[in-house]
Amino acid sequence: MVVLFAFVAGVLALLYAIFLIFNVTSRPSGSPRMVEISDAIKNGANAYLFRQYKTLVPIIIILSIVLFFVFGWVTVGTFLLGAVLSALAGYIGMNISVRANVRTAEAAKSGLANALNIAFRGGAVTGLVVAGLALLGVTAVFYLTQSVALTIGFGFGASLISLFMRVGGGIFTKAADVGADLVGKIEKGIPEDDPRNPAVIADNVGDCVGDCAGMAADLFESYGITLVAAMILGVLIGGNMVVFPLAIGAAGIIASVIGTFFVRLGKNQNIWNALFRGVLVTAVISAIMFYLTSTFLLKDIQGKFAFSPNISIFLAAVVGLVVTVVISYITEFYTGRDKKPVREVAEASKSGPAINIISGLALGLRSTFPTTILIISAILAAYYLAGVIGIAIAALGMLSVTGMIVAVDSYGPITDNAGGIAEMSKLPPHVRKVTDALDAVGNTTKAVTKGFAIGSAALAALSLFVAYAEATQLQAIDVLKPQVVIGLFIGGMIPFLVSSLLIRSVGKAAFSIVEEVRRQFKTIKGLMQGKAKPDYGKCVDITTRAALKEFVTPGVIAIVTPLSVGFILGPEALGGMLAGSIVTGFLLAVMQTVAGGAWDNTKKFIEAGNLGGKGSFAHVASVVGDTVGDGLKDTSGPSQNPLIKVMNMVALLFASLIVAYSLL
Amino acid sequence: MVVLFAFVAGVLALLYAIFLIFNVTSRPSGSPRMVEISDAIKNGANAYLFRQYKTLVPIIIILSIVLFFVFGWVTVGTFLLGAVLSALAGYIGMNISVRANVRTAEAAKSGLANALNIAFRGGAVTGLVVAGLALLGVTAVFYLTQSVALTIGFGFGASLISLFMRVGGGIFTKAADVGADLVGKIEKGIPEDDPRNPAVIADNVGDCVGDCAGMAADLFESYGITLVAAMILGVLIGGNMVVFPLAIGAAGIIASVIGTFFVRLGKNQNIWNALFRGVLVTAVISAIMFYLTSTFLLKDIQGKFAFSPNISIFLAAVVGLVVTVVISYITEFYTGRDKKPVREVAEASKSGPAINIISGLALGLRSTFPTTILIISAILAAYYLAGVIGIAIAALGMLSVTGMIVAVDSYGPITDNAGGIAEMSKLPPHVRKVTDALDAVGNTTKAVTKGFAIGSAALAALSLFVAYAEATQLQAIDVLKPQVVIGLFIGGMIPFLVSSLLIRSVGKAAFSIVEEVRRQFKTIKGLMQGKAKPDYGKCVDITTRAALKEFVTPGVIAIVTPLSVGFILGPEALGGMLAGSIVTGFLLAVMQTVAGGAWDNTKKFIEAGNLGGKGSFAHVASVVGDTVGDGLKDTSGPSQNPLIKVMNMVALLFASLIVAYSLL
Repeated sequence: MVVLFAFVAGVLALLYAIFLIFNVTSRPSGSPRMVEISDAIKNGANAYLFRQYKTLVPIIIILSIVLFFVFGWVTVGTFLLGAVLSALAGYIGMNISVRANVRTAEAAKSGLANALNIAFRGGAVTGLVVAGLALLGVTAVFYLTQSVALTIGFGFGASLISLFMRVGGGIFTKAADVGADLVGKIEKGIPEDDPRNPAVIADNVGDCVGDCAGMAADLFESYGITLVAAMILGVLIGGNMVVFPLAIGAAGIIASVIGTFFVRLGKNQNIWNALFRGVLVTAVISAIMFYLTSTFLLKDIQGKFAFSPNISIFLAAVVGLVVTVVISYITEFYTGRDKKPVREVAEASKSGPAINIISGLALGLRSTFPTTILIISAILAAYYLAGVIGIAIAALGMLSVTGMIVAVDSYGPITDNAGGIAEMSKLPPHVRKVTDALDAVGNTTKAVTKGFAIGSAALAALSLFVAYAEATQLQAIDVLKPQVVIGLFIGGMIPFLVSSLLIRSVGKAAFSIVEEVRRQFKTIKGLMQGKAKPDYGKCVDITTRAALKEFVTPGVIAIVTPLSVGFILGPEALGGMLAGSIVTGFLLAVMQTVAGGAWDNTKKFIEAGNLGGKGSFAHVASVVGDTVGDGLKDTSGPSQNPLIKVMNMVALLFASLIVAYSLL
Repeated sequence: MVVLFAFVAGVLALLYAIFLIFNVTSRPSGSPRMVEISDAIKNGANAYLFRQYKTLVPIIIILSIVLFFVFGWVTVGTFLLGAVLSALAGYIGMNISVRANVRTAEAAKSGLANALNIAFRGGAVTGLVVAGLALLGVTAVFYLTQSVALTIGFGFGASLISLFMRVGGGIFTKAADVGADLVGKIEKGIPEDDPRNPAVIADNVGDCVGDCAGMAADLFESYGITLVAAMILGVLIGGNMVVFPLAIGAAGIIASVIGTFFVRLGKNQNIWNALFRGVLVTAVISAIMFYLTSTFLLKDIQGKFAFSPNISIFLAAVVGLVVTVVISYITEFYTGRDKKPVREVAEASKSGPAINIISGLALGLRSTFPTTILIISAILAAYYLAGVIGIAIAALGMLSVTGMIVAVDSYGPITDNAGGIAEMSKLPPHVRKVTDALDAVGNTTKAVTKGFAIGSAALAALSLFVAYAEATQLQAIDVLKPQVVIGLFIGGMIPFLVSSLLIRSVGKAAFSIVEEVRRQFKTIKGLMQGKAKPDYGKCVDITTRAALKEFVTPGVIAIVTPLSVGFILGPEALGGMLAGSIVTGFLLAVMQTVAGGAWDNTKKFIEAGNLGGKGSFAHVASVVGDTVGDGLKDTSGPSQNPLIKVMNMVALLFASLIVAYSLL
């Protein structure tokens, strides 16, 4: 019956998404010039995504063959399902974005309410598809195989694709962004989104493939694998606890669908309030439904709980909701344009770029303190309430509102794109003013969802870690053993190494864009005067190739490292490695995301006319910080989430083999 | 008898140091102008050190009272001895440096060989005093109390002072350096060490209190606590193993004394070769003496060893020597001016400051990979050879050559200062050329010893960690327990937090220097024209006050965190915390040190005339990177070493109390 409930909720999400797609695409898409630009973005994004998928095919085939010989065809099937659905979630999310962007720009002509409406509905499609597909996928695998263990293959497929999409999209978006800015804004002194900039379309494509497709795949994965981990740990308790995770998922989806109706611009025209109301309603309805489902399903389960089983589990899920709210608050505090930390970085910018960098870096490092305290409090509370399953339930409680969170997040790149289209099609200033207002809030929601993605990834990875220990039947992962210490060091180091690779990839890719943009400005006569058109496609193509060349290595590291440690040093060492990777992956994700976000908003704060405004010494310094932060906050930082999840997933999948065949 | 051997070696080191002091101070100290400058540096450095010690007195008193009531007066005595000797090592090291600097400048008039001779002898005094005092201190405590356990108090005292001196000196040196450069070089366009710059004396004082006193105290600590940890673990095996660590220490000191005689400039005038020959001879003699002492002492001990006990222990010590060589090589490769990584950062500087920062950051992150592989290989090899005692012996093998390493390191700031004095006293260009040649090699030795300090700190902290587990009688530190995971998160986060505090402290202190220097240039008429003298003392005073205000917090964190975790979450959680702090402290130390070193040498590479040389766009970019890196490589990065050691030391000292009185 719970399975049926989950099916219904998943299908409901998809149906409502389809309704929204029709609704959004039926809106007018503006002048031929606007359609032309929008088409260029759409084609670039689709071309990138298809080439990315094509690059992945051989990897998927090799892994399928390995999985076939090791685990048989059922696992291959579930693996492929996870991979395909993950890719599909990204694909749909991106495609609605490239359709909603131009329509948001068009709607902006008639005011804020209309534009917000379309942009948010576009985002909601992505949110509902992500949550719906993940829930349906896990439910289907469980229903068809009647085995919790076989959902692991699904999780692995989802996990792997999400890492590749996060990394690939992340490199693309930042390479294009940095490349466009370095020549356009700094060397040539033309504004953001200026149609004369040859990299401007690539920049917009990047928003779609990175922020939409990448984020969608990432949260699809977090959601899917947390369901898997919670079900695996649920088996230990038995009874309805096995399927209860699906019920939480279903409850969250229904709450998200209802929540979308509450996103409406109030009389005070406050966009953030409109979006936040949606999130709040979703959280409250979720909590109520958690209470009802746990009371209905979990009254009779056995196990050690702080209170009665249903209340304990309910409270553990609420812990997750609380983490969602608090981590959003922390991220917003450290990166918000009007908050003290960013003002301090702005103040420091008066002493030049070096001091701007130093103070942003210090800020990012410092923000790990409250975030860590939050996560350990959640772990402590969840464990106190319900033991290890409590941690998985807290993660799930957090992720249950994924639909709404992704909706609010995907709204960001849509409005960002809409602004770009308005600028490039030379729409009247009041239109750009509307899209700018939407975009400003988009930056906040982006920061908030990044916090959400990091926190949920940490809890999801921890759940997988516990599930791994369960699967290997390890009695302990003892740091006093040298192989565990070694595992800890290796695991701790991997996020540093992958960060390095990604930061370098962005730098290299951006460099090739810089050269191409410079070349076009030099060789295309009349480009600077606006008399000739740049070759947008060439920049998209270069970014695509650069991203494709770079996005595979981190994925390979994420698969090879846990297998090497496991098969050479043994399952306990692998446990140490996983723990190490979760800790530093989490810390580096927080640090990079916050530092990057703060640098970005420092620049915006100064551009808003503070401390001398645009063109001042402080502004020049803040542009340097923003450029440094771009790769940290949108590529390297967010990639830590899928990285730690994939490593834990690989370990979980190969757990029994590692126990049987490890060298030591 | 081993105790006697250790005493003799320790006394020998001190006697030889005294001989060298007489030798160095008997050299001519040049013109009145040179003496005047040298005195200004000496007075500034002494004033700072005394005020730092004065600030520490209340902290030491409070801790002594606590220790008295908890452990009794013997522990208070050993604690005070450790603290006083640590402070003394720093004091002597600094005072010989401020005497050797001016004499090196004077000797440089008559050529390279003479100048090298004085500078190295000055450094050797520090090296021998550090090693000699540490060995004598531990030996004395052990001889007088006949208890290994009571040496822990000595270690704690040494540890605490070293953290404060590292942090305080680190803030001082970089605040003065950055402050002097930001106004002098960038705003006013006057060269480094120009006497018109009001912060120039403060900058030179900083070299003495940071690079000499700070480094000396840091390695005094590493050496002392590793002796303590090895003896504690030696008790488990019994027999001569208990005192064998003292024998290793004695062997290393004798080898270092002999090694100093081999530092002589060859015909090819290669300074690096001269220094490296000393290190090599020391390492080879050490190895031979390890072999002899282990064969003589350890033939009959019981325990699980890979080979016969003496050979296994001998090989474990050799593992430490190998780590010394390899980690030096890695650090030198990643930060060397003529190596590929720095050239890549230089190349990136052509695209401006942001790309310079990005590529340096990526480089630092990447360098954690080989360094981690090295450390885990050492752990694996040492453990394979001799179990947990193997790790402590490897750490000790590494640290046994401390005398020589510190000698080579302290040589750096002496030549740096000599160059400054030459510049300020307007000595002829050929003198400056000699000091520049010495200083260039000083940068390499500085990078190399930083690698040494990090590697040895990691192994020393691990030894303490094992000793802690032994003292608490923990059967396991099981990461599957939530409190251990929480400990891991907290421990992992602390180095991030402390890095943030230190980076910010440097920024804040540098800012106050910038304001003062600007003020002096504005208000002192004729300063820029060289007609009026700046108020050097004011800058020294401001830096001193800024450093004193900031250096206490990290120390308090290092004491309070392990005690809180231990007494609230229990000894096992504290074990997790220690492990987490060692891993991220090590990684952050490597990352920051390498990134900072690479940025520094990138600037120097460009200033040597490459990529457009001084004043080019790439040069401006590289100055930004260098400024960002200054605080990372000389304050925050190196402070991770004493930080993780102090936390482990605190845990070890309070181990039995934590077991008895923890809440959970």
